[in-house]
Amino acid sequence: MIGYAFMGKAHSNAWRNVASYFDVPAFEQIVLVGRDAAGVANAAAKYGWAETATDWREVISRDDIHIVDICAPGWMHAEIAIAALEAGKHVLLEKPLANTLAEAEAMTAASVEARAAGVQSMVGFNYRRVPALVLAKELIAEGRVGNVRHVRAAYLQDWLADDQAPMTWRLRKETAGSGALGDIASHAIDQVLFLLGDQVTEVSGRTHTFTSHRPGPAGPEEVTVDDAAWATLSLASGAIASVEVSRVATGRKNSLNLEIYGDKGSIVFDLENLNELGFLDATVPVREQGFRRILVNEPEHPYLEAWWPRATSSAGNIPSPTKSATSCWPSPPARHHRRRSPTAWRSSAS
Amino acid sequence: MIGYAFMGKAHSNAWRNVASYFDVPAFEQIVLVGRDAAGVANAAAKYGWAETATDWREVISRDDIHIVDICAPGWMHAEIAIAALEAGKHVLLEKPLANTLAEAEAMTAASVEARAAGVQSMVGFNYRRVPALVLAKELIAEGRVGNVRHVRAAYLQDWLADDQAPMTWRLRKETAGSGALGDIASHAIDQVLFLLGDQVTEVSGRTHTFTSHRPGPAGPEEVTVDDAAWATLSLASGAIASVEVSRVATGRKNSLNLEIYGDKGSIVFDLENLNELGFLDATVPVREQGFRRILVNEPEHPYLEAWWPRATSSAGNIPSPTKSATSCWPSPPARHHRRRSPTAWRSSAS
Amino acid sequence: MIGYAFMGKAHSNAWRNVASYFDVPAFEQIVLVGRDAAGVANAAAKYGWAETATDWREVISRDDIHIVDICAPGWMHAEIAIAALEAGKHVLLEKPLANTLAEAEAMTAASVEARAAGVQSMVGFNYRRVPALVLAKELIAEGRVGNVRHVRAAYLQDWLADDQAPMTWRLRKETAGSGALGDIASHAIDQVLFLLGDQVTEVSGRTHTFTSHRPGPAGPEEVTVDDAAWATLSLASGAIASVEVSRVATGRKNSLNLEIYGDKGSIVFDLENLNELGFLDATVPVREQGFRRILVNEPEHPYLEAWWPRATSSAGNIPSPTKSATSCWPSPPARHHRRRSPTAWRSSAS
Amino acid sequence: MIGYAFMGKAHSNAWRNVASYFDVPAFEQIVLVGRDAAGVANAAAKYGWAETATDWREVISRDDIHIVDICAPGWMHAEIAIAALEAGKHVLLEKPLANTLAEAEAMTAASVEARAAGVQSMVGFNYRRVPALVLAKELIAEGRVGNVRHVRAAYLQDWLADDQAPMTWRLRKETAGSGALGDIASHAIDQVLFLLGDQVTEVSGRTHTFTSHRPGPAGPEEVTVDDAAWATLSLASGAIASVEVSRVATGRKNSLNLEIYGDKGSIVFDLENLNELGFLDATVPVREQGFRRILVNEPEHPYLEAWWPRATSSAGNIPSPTKSATSCWPSPPARHHRRRSPTAWRSSAS
Repeated sequence: MIGYAFMGKAHSNAWRNVASYFDVPAFEQIVLVGRDAAGVANAAAKYGWAETATDWREVISRDDIHIVDICAPGWMHAEIAIAALEAGKHVLLEKPLANTLAEAEAMTAASVEARAAGVQSMVGFNYRRVPALVLAKELIAEGRVGNVRHVRAAYLQDWLADDQAPMTWRLRKETAGSGALGDIASHAIDQVLFLLGDQVTEVSGRTHTFTSHRPGPAGPEEVTVDDAAWATLSLASGAIASVEVSRVATGRKNSLNLEIYGDKGSIVFDLENLNELGFLDATVPVREQGFRRILVNEPEHPYLEAWWPRATSSAGNIPSPTKSATSCWPSPPARHHRRRSPTAWRSSAS
Repeated sequence: MIGYAFMGKAHSNAWRNVASYFDVPAFEQIVLVGRDAAGVANAAAKYGWAETATDWREVISRDDIHIVDICAPGWMHAEIAIAALEAGKHVLLEKPLANTLAEAEAMTAASVEARAAGVQSMVGFNYRRVPALVLAKELIAEGRVGNVRHVRAAYLQDWLADDQAPMTWRLRKETAGSGALGDIASHAIDQVLFLLGDQVTEVSGRTHTFTSHRPGPAGPEEVTVDDAAWATLSLASGAIASVEVSRVATGRKNSLNLEIYGDKGSIVFDLENLNELGFLDATVPVREQGFRRILVNEPEHPYLEAWWPRATSSAGNIPSPTKSATSCWPSPPARHHRRRSPTAWRSSAS
Repeated sequence: MIGYAFMGKAHSNAWRNVASYFDVPAFEQIVLVGRDAAGVANAAAKYGWAETATDWREVISRDDIHIVDICAPGWMHAEIAIAALEAGKHVLLEKPLANTLAEAEAMTAASVEARAAGVQSMVGFNYRRVPALVLAKELIAEGRVGNVRHVRAAYLQDWLADDQAPMTWRLRKETAGSGALGDIASHAIDQVLFLLGDQVTEVSGRTHTFTSHRPGPAGPEEVTVDDAAWATLSLASGAIASVEVSRVATGRKNSLNLEIYGDKGSIVFDLENLNELGFLDATVPVREQGFRRILVNEPEHPYLEAWWPRATSSAGNIPSPTKSATSCWPSPPARHHRRRSPTAWRSSAS
Repeated sequence: MIGYAFMGKAHSNAWRNVASYFDVPAFEQIVLVGRDAAGVANAAAKYGWAETATDWREVISRDDIHIVDICAPGWMHAEIAIAALEAGKHVLLEKPLANTLAEAEAMTAASVEARAAGVQSMVGFNYRRVPALVLAKELIAEGRVGNVRHVRAAYLQDWLADDQAPMTWRLRKETAGSGALGDIASHAIDQVLFLLGDQVTEVSGRTHTFTSHRPGPAGPEEVTVDDAAWATLSLASGAIASVEVSRVATGRKNSLNLEIYGDKGSIVFDLENLNELGFLDATVPVREQGFRRILVNEPEHPYLEAWWPRATSSAGNIPSPTKSATSCWPSPPARHHRRRSPTAWRSSAS
C-alpha cells in the first residue's frame, strides 16, 4: 500500500479484517510505503503492516507483492499505477482516477493491456458495497421502482464553509485536478450509473468557487478548483439525473443523498443514515403508500441463528461497510468476492 | 477468549483492531477456547487467534495468558470467572453478570479479593462507549440538561414476535436466568444509571410472557422466562425512570431508546441511529428551541487535518463503536484507556 | 356553548366550518355563555356566535337551543351536563368526564336516562378522528397488524418543566381532579382502547409530583395533583399496554405517542407529526420490511379531480383535523357523520 | 371571488376564518362567481358566500364589492384582473401571475396605474406566511445563518407519475402556460427570493417532458408543457440557488424542500412537515452542532395563558396556515395585517 493518511488508514482496516467477515483468503499486509520513514513506520505498526519502505518503485518490483493499493494523492496516480501494471501487479486506486483526461487515457490503455495478461485494476468506489445501496441496486434491477425517470444525487459537505480556512493542495488545480467535482461528484455520478446500470448521453452543468482566495503561509492564495458543482445528466434510458455537490453546505458532514423516482416506486438514501434505505412501493393501495425506512444492516437477530445447533462458520456478519467495496476500472468485469447474506447485527446485546 | 459465537466474534473484532484506533499496546490474541474442536479451529482462523483449546481450565492456568474474556453463556459465568480470578487473570465478561443472585454475590466476592491483588474484572456494558452516549454523559455532567426528572428507557427487539419460533436455551430459566429482563433491561438500566451517575432507591415493575409454549424437538415446551418487562425506578436524585423492554416489538430490531428530560434541556437517543444524539437546549429563546440531531461520529472532516503538515500519529479515528467499551465490575474504579478526540469519519470520500 | 377560552375557541372553529367540509347541515352558533360579559361579547364576535349570555341556566332552558357544548372547567361538568340532559338538550363535553367517580356515575345515570328519550351525550375525545388514527384503526380492524401484544402509549408535554411556574387551578385536586392523569392520560388510554376495540382487565401504576410547591400570589402553595403518571394495562385481548404521561418532558410540546406491535405488523404515531402514520407490514419479505411513513392527509393531488369534468360538490376536503371528532359517552352508539373519503390536500399549489 | 374549485375552496376557508385568528375586520363574503349556476350555488352554500353569479363582468361593476379574488385558471387572469383594477377593485389572484410575458406586462402596467389611485393588487404566494418560513425569514434577516452561499429549492409532486393518466388542460401550453415550471417552480423561486431578500442576476436551466403523449377522449394527445424543470440561479448577493421541480417524483405528494446554507448556519424546510423548521447554528461549539427540529406552531402551551387572569381577547391562535398569506404584485409595498405573536396550539388536550 502506498500512502498511509486518510485512505491508507481506511484501506488498512479493510485488508486487516476482510477475511473475518467474508469467505476470502486472508491477505498478507506486506509493505506500507510512504515518503517519511518515521511516519510510515509508526503507521505500519498501528495498522498491521509487516514492513515499511520509502521508495514505491523498489516495492513494486518485489516478487512477493501481488497487489498494489494506491492511496497517494491524485497527481501520483498515473505514474504509480502504470508502473505497477507494467510490473504485473493488480492495482487498486482511489477515486478520482486521474487529475487530467490525458492521464486517465494513458491509465486506461495500460489497464486494458494488463488485463489481457490477467492483471486486474480497480477504482475504489467504496459506496457501491454499502449494504443499503446493494439493496437499492437489487430492487431497481428487479423492477421494483419500474421505469426510472427523475433522479436526484447530491453530495454535500461543509469543510470549506469557513472562508478563512487556509489554502491547501486540495484547492489547487495542479495538485487536485478539481474540487468538489472530482472529489465527491465522482461518487454521486458513479452511484447513479451503477445503481441504474445506465450511461450518460448528454450533460449540462456549471461549477462555482465561492471563496476565491484563502490564506497561505505567505499571504492570500488563489483557489483554482470549484467549491460546488451542478449538472443535469441525460441518461440513455430516458431518465434525467441532477447532480449537485458542495463543500460549503454548513452542517452537512458527509451527506451523499440519492433519490430515484420510477413509475412503480421510489428509492431514497442518505449516507448520514448509512444503514437505512427508503423505499416506496407505488403498487400497493394508495392508502398505505409511504416511504419505508428499511434498516438494511439488521435483518435478523443473531440469536435466531442459535435456534438449533449449526456450524459457526456460516455466521458471516458484516458489522459495518468497509473499504473492501470497489468498482472495476476502466470498464468492469466485476471480480468482487460474493457478499454473504446479510445477517449482520450492528451493535447489540450479548 | 472462551466462546466464539455471537459475542466471541464481536470481541475478536475489538481485540484485533483496538490498537489501530486507540493508544494502547497491541494485544496478542493467544487462545480461543470452545467445546467443539473443529468449530473453534475454524473460528480462530477467521478471527485471528493463534491457538485453540477445548478445555478452559487448562488455558487459564497458562502463564502467558493475562486476560480471560468470557463469551460463554451466562450459566458458565460464575465458575469460569471465579476460577480465572483465582488464577490471577484479569476477567472481562458479558452481561448479564450471572443467572442468579447467589452466583453474582460469589463473583463479586472473588472480584473484590482479586482486585486487592491488582487483578481487574469488568462486565462488558458496551454501549457506555458509543460516542453519542459518551457525549450525552458529558452534557449531563456539565449540567446542560439541568436537574433530571423524567427519564424513559426502552429496549425493543422483535426476534420472538413469531409465536412459532422454536424453543431455545435462551427461553429457559435454568440456562438463561431471565428473558428480556436480564438480556436487554440490563443494558437499559445500566445506561440510565451510568449516564446520570445515579442509583436506584425503589423499583416497581412486572414481567410478562406472551407466548407460554414453543415448539421443541419433541413437542411443545414451556417458556420459563419473560418476553417483556416494565418498571419504574425511583432514583436517588429524585428523578424517575421508566424501563420497558420487549422481544416481541415487531419491526424493532435493536432499538435501545433513551429520553432524559431535565429542567434545562433534554437528551434523546436511539441505538438504531447509532451515531446521532438528540439534544434540546431549553435555555435558548423558545422561538428557536428544538431537538438537535447531532451527528456525533462526524465532528470534523478528515481533510481538515491536512491543512498544514502534522504528525500522522495523532490522527486517531474511531470508525465505529467497538466492544472495547466496558464497565467495571462489581463497583468501578474506571480503568479505560482514554478515548482520543473524536476526529472520526464514518465513511467518506478519499 | 359554555366557556370561551382554549377549548371554546377550538370548538367554535369546528362549528363554524364543519359544514364546509362534511355533508352535514350547517349548525347555527346561537349563544356563547361566559361569566364575564365583556369577555364573552368579545369572544362571540371573534368566533361567530350570534348572542351572548352570562347565566348558563337560562340558556339551557331556551327552546331554540338543541345542543349544549360544555367547554367549562371540569368541576362544573356534572352540574351543567346533568341539568342540560334533564332539559332535553344533547350534550357534548370535554374530557375528562368528571373530577370524581361520584360525579361521573351521576352523569352516566343521567346520560342513560336521557338516551332513552333520544337525547345524545358525548365526551370530546378529539384525537379519535385524526385522519392518521382513523387509518390506524382501519388497519388494525382489518388484521393488518395481526394479534396485538405489546402496546406503548405516552403523552408528553413540558409546560410545567419550569419549577418556578406559578400555582394555578389546574394544579389543585379540588378544581382539576387530577393532573397529567386526567388531562392527558385520559387521551392516551382512550386512544389505546378505541384503536384496539379492547378493554382493561387489570391496571398497575403510580403517579408522581416532581414540584411539590409553586409560587402563589401570597407565597408557596402545595401542588395536589400529579406531574406525571405511569401504568401498565392488561387488556382483555391478552395485550399489555404501557401508559406514560408527563408535564415536565422538556421539549415535548404535545407529543401523544402510540406504538402498537402485533404479530403481523406494527403501527406508530406521534401527534407532533399529525398527518403521518408509521406502519410496518411484517408479512412482506424481511429484506424490504421497514416502517412506512404514510402521509395520511395527502392521498391524492387535487388536480387529479380535474381530469374529466365532474361535480364540484363531491370534492370534500379535510384540511386539518378539527374538534368535530368526538367519542360517545358513557357507552357509545356512535352517531358521527360519515367522514368523506380523504382527498384532502393540506397546503398546496393553486 | 371568481372560481370555486380547488383554490376557491381554500380561499373561502381563509375569508371565513381570518377574523377569528387575526385582528382584522370580518370580511363579508358577498358573491361567488362561476360559469355553472348550479355548481356555484352549491359551492356558495358550503363555503359561506351570500350570493352567486355567473357573469364576472357584472359583479366587478358592483359598488358593494371592494375586493376581487381571482381563483380562475391562468388564461383568464389578465382579462379579469385588468378589468377589476380599472373598476377600482383591489385584486388578489393566484400564481402564476399570467401565462405569457405579454399578459404579465399588461397586468403589471394596470397594477402600477391602479396603485397610484390607492388600489392594491397581490399574487397569492401563500407559503410566505407558513409560520415555519416566517421564522426562517426572521432568522436569515437577523444574520443567524450569516452570508448565504449554497441554496437548494425543490418542489416535488407525483400526480403525473402514471403515464396513462389522461390529458387535461393543465398539460397544454395554450391553457396552462407551462407545466411544473409555472405551477410549482414559481413557488420555489418566490420563496428563495423572499426568504433571502435577493434577486436573480443570471439563470441557466432546462425543462423536460417525460411523457410526450397522453390519452384524450379521442386518442393520444401531445403534452405541450414540462413535467420537470431544473435551473441554477445566480443571485445578486453572490449566492447560487438550484431549483428543481417535478410532477413525476413518485411518493412526493407536495414536497417543497428548501435548504439554505450560510457561513454561520443553515436552514432546512419541507412542506410535508409543515410545522417544522430545521436550523443549524454553526456558531455553537462543533461538539453540539446539529440541525434542530423546531416545532414552529407550538411555542407555548395554551394552559400557560391561564396562569393568572388575563383578557381573552389577546389569545390569538393560528391553528394552521391559511391562504390569507399573499405576496405583493408586481412590486410590493407590503400591506399584510400584522401577524399576532405565535401562541398557536395545533391540536391538544382540553
